[in-house]
Amino acid sequence: AMAGCGWARAVRGLLLDVSGVLYDSGADGGVPIAGSAEAVRRIKASGLKLQLCTNETQATREDFVRKLRALGFDISVNEVTAPAPAACHLLKERGLRPHLLVHHDLVPEFAEIDKTNPNCVVLGDAAENFTYANLNEAFRLLIGMEKPVLISLGKGRYYKETDGLKLDVGAYMKALEYACDIQAEVVGKPAKRFFESALAELGVPPEQAIMIGDDIVSDVGGAQQCGMRALQVRTGKYRPSDENHPQVKPDAYVNNLAEAVDIILQQL
Amino acid sequence: AMAGCGWARAVRGLLLDVSGVLYDSGADGGVPIAGSAEAVRRIKASGLKLQLCTNETQATREDFVRKLRALGFDISVNEVTAPAPAACHLLKERGLRPHLLVHHDLVPEFAEIDKTNPNCVVLGDAAENFTYANLNEAFRLLIGMEKPVLISLGKGRYYKETDGLKLDVGAYMKALEYACDIQAEVVGKPAKRFFESALAELGVPPEQAIMIGDDIVSDVGGAQQCGMRALQVRTGKYRPSDENHPQVKPDAYVNNLAEAVDIILQQL
Repeated sequence: AMAGCGWARAVRGLLLDVSGVLYDSGADGGVPIAGSAEAVRRIKASGLKLQLCTNETQATREDFVRKLRALGFDISVNEVTAPAPAACHLLKERGLRPHLLVHHDLVPEFAEIDKTNPNCVVLGDAAENFTYANLNEAFRLLIGMEKPVLISLGKGRYYKETDGLKLDVGAYMKALEYACDIQAEVVGKPAKRFFESALAELGVPPEQAIMIGDDIVSDVGGAQQCGMRALQVRTGKYRPSDENHPQVKPDAYVNNLAEAVDIILQQL
Repeated sequence: AMAGCGWARAVRGLLLDVSGVLYDSGADGGVPIAGSAEAVRRIKASGLKLQLCTNETQATREDFVRKLRALGFDISVNEVTAPAPAACHLLKERGLRPHLLVHHDLVPEFAEIDKTNPNCVVLGDAAENFTYANLNEAFRLLIGMEKPVLISLGKGRYYKETDGLKLDVGAYMKALEYACDIQAEVVGKPAKRFFESALAELGVPPEQAIMIGDDIVSDVGGAQQCGMRALQVRTGKYRPSDENHPQVKPDAYVNNLAEAVDIILQQL
């Protein structure tokens, strides 16, 4: 065993963030992060359980998995926990009819959901759909509701694409929260309920699971609040200033997923 | 004198908000609020001093005054205190070179300002210019600065146009603040310095001035923090729920500017 790697002991399953850990997303479909496809294969060969836990909302899970497979990742749809299916569950549970401000390619996830006469707004990473007109439309619906309900698929600040950093859904969530003087309900990381459903799908209790992500708040902070250990990778949107975050301290830093997997497999 | 109008005593000057008090703005140039043009004439005939104190940033002061005159308001350019000239003053004072995310029609206000190699972002009510691409560009500039400086021309939540409510600059300010983990500097209402420069142009000390506006926070709260009295009109973006605002209580409510002027002139 390596010295100083106590964090890697007694692990039975891994939750992996995707963008910034497996690959850097981009208009071109993105590029894999060196060593990550091989790392996923090694996790599976080791007998460790694996679940991807993503805030990705620019595609259906099916299309998302198709993209990952084309990039060389051995992943199937039931290995992905994502906000849109979780939101559909919540909408049905509470009889909510959403107005969607989401990416075009995410819309099919809501095919079964009644969207007539909306009584809430669901906000995803709409990207080019974040037009002035569309944001105004969502705002007007909310401000016109007696008790406005805004459901945000994640609350990330930004993410890294191959051509640079992009504003994430959290920035637009804050805009609507401020304009309407409300608080959004977050479905996705770092919400506790979302991590708990990912753990349920992983089939491992929190104390035997490690989350690996590039987002100090959504990935690391959220997982730790569920009783998991959490690593931050120095890939994706990682910035050196993350290491001085006033609230969140990962159980360890690793240069990338491949390094994390090296260390974890040596401790098995 | 009318009963219960102690708030109207010992007044020498009025600061008036414009959108929602004089007129409702809109793509068509907007429509005057009934009685407001006549009220402005009566203020001037009374010998009271008058200054418009606006967060309008969709046009230069010259174009703004031209529009108001076309709607029947007897107003000249030096009677308007607006954020863009105040921002230019601040930029020069601090040697800041702005990247502008503002309305096309506001750009001429910054003609004299060096905009090469930007070291800050100036955010106005950019309206249709609030595209996903433009917001990303402002975000990337800020996140790339060692010490990001974001100057926001106002921080309004929304305003009312003839075709409905619109998100104001404050919503986009919050989006960038959250994404970059910074605090914007606000030039415009409710900043104390902005009210003070409007009072200086009015030529009346705060205890002899009344602010009249439709925004409970930017107009009423901001003016009161400068030692002025402040009225909220029940026109423009006024909503009945404003009357239960947890922090701000106007010195009085009036149905519209004409009613406020009726009461004030009776107390002279």
